Amino acid sequence: MKIKIKTALISVHNKNNLKEILSILKKYKVNIISSGGTYKKINELGFECKEISEYTGSPEILDGRVKTLHPKIHAGILNKIDNKNHFKQMKNLNYGNIDLIIVNFYPFEKSINSDKHQSEIIENIDIGGPAMVRAAAKNFEYKTIITSLDQYNELKSELKNNKGKTTKEFRQKLSKDAFLETAYYDAVISKYFTNLSYEKFPSKEIIYGKKMEVLRYGENPHQQAAIYSNGDSVFKQISGKKLSFNNYSDMFAAIKITNTLPKNIGCVVLKHLNPCGVSINKNKIISLRSAIKCDPISAFGGIISCNFKINDKIAKELSKIFLEIVIGKSFTKKAIKILKKKKNLRIIETKNLNYENKLSIKSNFNNFLLQEPDTLLLDKKNFKVVSKRKPGKNMLENLIFAFNICRFVKSNAIVISQNFSTIGIGSGQTSRLDSCDIAVNKMRKFRLNKKYEDIYAASDAFFPFTDGVEKLAIAGVNAIIQPSGSIRDKEVVKLANKLDLILVFSKTRHFNH
Amino acid sequence: MKIKIKTALISVHNKNNLKEILSILKKYKVNIISSGGTYKKINELGFECKEISEYTGSPEILDGRVKTLHPKIHAGILNKIDNKNHFKQMKNLNYGNIDLIIVNFYPFEKSINSDKHQSEIIENIDIGGPAMVRAAAKNFEYKTIITSLDQYNELKSELKNNKGKTTKEFRQKLSKDAFLETAYYDAVISKYFTNLSYEKFPSKEIIYGKKMEVLRYGENPHQQAAIYSNGDSVFKQISGKKLSFNNYSDMFAAIKITNTLPKNIGCVVLKHLNPCGVSINKNKIISLRSAIKCDPISAFGGIISCNFKINDKIAKELSKIFLEIVIGKSFTKKAIKILKKKKNLRIIETKNLNYENKLSIKSNFNNFLLQEPDTLLLDKKNFKVVSKRKPGKNMLENLIFAFNICRFVKSNAIVISQNFSTIGIGSGQTSRLDSCDIAVNKMRKFRLNKKYEDIYAASDAFFPFTDGVEKLAIAGVNAIIQPSGSIRDKEVVKLANKLDLILVFSKTRHFNH
Repeated sequence: MKIKIKTALISVHNKNNLKEILSILKKYKVNIISSGGTYKKINELGFECKEISEYTGSPEILDGRVKTLHPKIHAGILNKIDNKNHFKQMKNLNYGNIDLIIVNFYPFEKSINSDKHQSEIIENIDIGGPAMVRAAAKNFEYKTIITSLDQYNELKSELKNNKGKTTKEFRQKLSKDAFLETAYYDAVISKYFTNLSYEKFPSKEIIYGKKMEVLRYGENPHQQAAIYSNGDSVFKQISGKKLSFNNYSDMFAAIKITNTLPKNIGCVVLKHLNPCGVSINKNKIISLRSAIKCDPISAFGGIISCNFKINDKIAKELSKIFLEIVIGKSFTKKAIKILKKKKNLRIIETKNLNYENKLSIKSNFNNFLLQEPDTLLLDKKNFKVVSKRKPGKNMLENLIFAFNICRFVKSNAIVISQNFSTIGIGSGQTSRLDSCDIAVNKMRKFRLNKKYEDIYAASDAFFPFTDGVEKLAIAGVNAIIQPSGSIRDKEVVKLANKLDLILVFSKTRHFNH
Repeated sequence: MKIKIKTALISVHNKNNLKEILSILKKYKVNIISSGGTYKKINELGFECKEISEYTGSPEILDGRVKTLHPKIHAGILNKIDNKNHFKQMKNLNYGNIDLIIVNFYPFEKSINSDKHQSEIIENIDIGGPAMVRAAAKNFEYKTIITSLDQYNELKSELKNNKGKTTKEFRQKLSKDAFLETAYYDAVISKYFTNLSYEKFPSKEIIYGKKMEVLRYGENPHQQAAIYSNGDSVFKQISGKKLSFNNYSDMFAAIKITNTLPKNIGCVVLKHLNPCGVSINKNKIISLRSAIKCDPISAFGGIISCNFKINDKIAKELSKIFLEIVIGKSFTKKAIKILKKKKNLRIIETKNLNYENKLSIKSNFNNFLLQEPDTLLLDKKNFKVVSKRKPGKNMLENLIFAFNICRFVKSNAIVISQNFSTIGIGSGQTSRLDSCDIAVNKMRKFRLNKKYEDIYAASDAFFPFTDGVEKLAIAGVNAIIQPSGSIRDKEVVKLANKLDLILVFSKTRHFNH
């Protein structure tokens, strides 16, 4: 059923483009009801408008807290215009019909992110607005509800195409959008109060985000996908093709690793969510080269993340291999010029990236698992040297470097390193021994720097048997760090001593799936 | 500030335990306002109560759509009781103060899951209730808002401990819960309308769930975690220890695989989100044994999922190895008795599991990626044989079996199979050649059935070079299926023909990270 718009109620926080809407409403001789700032603005713009308190006959009270919460307004919105009883009741009470409701809220997210006092933030919670929006959205069979400036043009064309009327199809679409607005609005408010209470896992969980973009496709071309943001915008793409779903995944995984490395000296090469090379070195070129050297075959078509400013020298080095994405803290102009020569290469600057680590979500069928991210700081004070041979300060730091990388490698994970660079990474195996094998094989295949230096290994969880430790020792590893916790820990310590290995127990396990 | 409860407004869908609350309110001489079904119930229970229309002086109209949306009610809820202007305005209008609001909604989820007509479902959307709840929650400085039966006991103790008053701390906690209720309520409504509109990625996304349980910890002991459900309950745990975070992850991953296997004959062994053995065989014992045989070392401490009923014979076979979880479509009583002997073993029945595949969520920092799950049906009609040698029907089916498993193995994935059982799985590598190596090594290590039979291999994405194909052929593989799409596809086809391999292009890629 097409419905003629005769009366509209307008109450908007964002008053942009109001004139356009008022002009078209005037054209179709629509009566306007409004109050407060919107009423004032409408008058200023030179349009006629009735104030709500005059319309209802009830004064606006409690500093504006109660003005639209009135039966005349809500009956005007909630009545079924083709229902005889409704019509009779409305007539008896001298209540008029309201056909169009234009409401938008003061964005609660803005309040939260401001320095406002809590009482002021709470004052911003709109009660009357959402009540009208929900009433109109429920009654979309008869009512038209506009909740966003983006819909003004749609409304204009709709009225134009239907001579001042709206179609049910249009009203239902707007109703869906309206409930999305009220749900989102309360989700933000709810999260604000839940955070204040330090409650980690409330009885109900609501995760919300605004669409950043619809992606070309998901992990694979036959899967549709989009990315949503629930916080401030994050990074800057300086150049290159649009980021794909897998690009986004890999990019964030890489940044998570470089975030944990000492500032301004760390490099990560990553592919398929697994690092294939990580290094830290005060000489940034060496840092980069060492990260690539760990597995130059895998680096091909991968992404590189550096936690430092990329200059022309580093850019030239990066240009030598085919990459999907280069991530830097920032870039010199010269560096950008060099990298931009590869048109498809995505160049990402992270200096303004918001690193807030929210709860991580893993969805399955009709449920989702929520957990804190694994952001535990690794502190050598918490580690216990259990072998007879003891590590020096530098050795311990090397072990911590390897152990930290380990937690970003898909389990079961084994990382072999030398002088603060990975030289063999064994990832994603169902058997720990297989991960040892893979790490050792990589080390043997690509280790160019074969001069004598200590070799370290880290395991993300305990060794269930001694075989993995033995394999690493035979391959040349001098020191191992692992969480401990196996019933065979004692056997492992015994073997380490027999082989003159350094063995450190970390106590904390770091599975990552 | 402690606030004395003098007047309460009650409007509840769920009328259980109302008597208890009314008794305590009577004790503290609280005036009750109510309407409709709640008013009737309160009268039946023998308590005094004023009807809302009498209280406001406005009739209940539009079939109950408008009754509480009245300034007298909302001023009663929204006024600051220590604000002189508010007090004066209230007095002038002869408006009374409402201190306690008890409201619960008709659960919208129930409406959706019923057979009700859309107009009836929409009729169930509560407008007045949420408006009062939100008003009271905003004004928690002065007002007490009860939105759930779980809070009745808390309210009772609070009133008892404070002689008919409530504390601000208590009111703020209830306010947080109230906004969670309204946010959740509108999230469910919004999802209902969005689904009706077939809009996949709306401008805002709201994901909601009810807490199933807080888990002992997350992926690792230093991470707190919980699981939430956004649909019907799902599976039945018959016996064993509580499921851990990693158990849940692995269990759903395993079930996702068995779901895709032909009914009543499929078995999966899984660990760390990767299958380490999959088989289908009409003889269920052989199916189980073959799945384990693929990598018996990894199977240790893993989980096994069967898409058939588990009888005593199968249970005995399952008892031979140490497992964390056994999943079956159902179990005979004898089978349960046998499996229960292992006290810790978790026994899971899936016959009532709801397999609805919602959008999958991947969270990172302040954003999340949403995508459709990879549930594409694999149809041999879509596959193209590109080698000179052509596969028979059975061969093609074997290739599809391997290719299907491939998409559940973390990328890069290579699956080698023989007679509908995996015999080598290469997972989670940054280089495809490494995945080939791992799969081949596993095959060599554990393949007990070495009699002559065709050997198949599947790759989740194209081979970027010919080396992987060559490695598989040398290892004894006779037929390969892969998506194609490399610039070296022609070279790969040429090599396949040279080696007399069967080569099939699937066109669809199946990354899984």
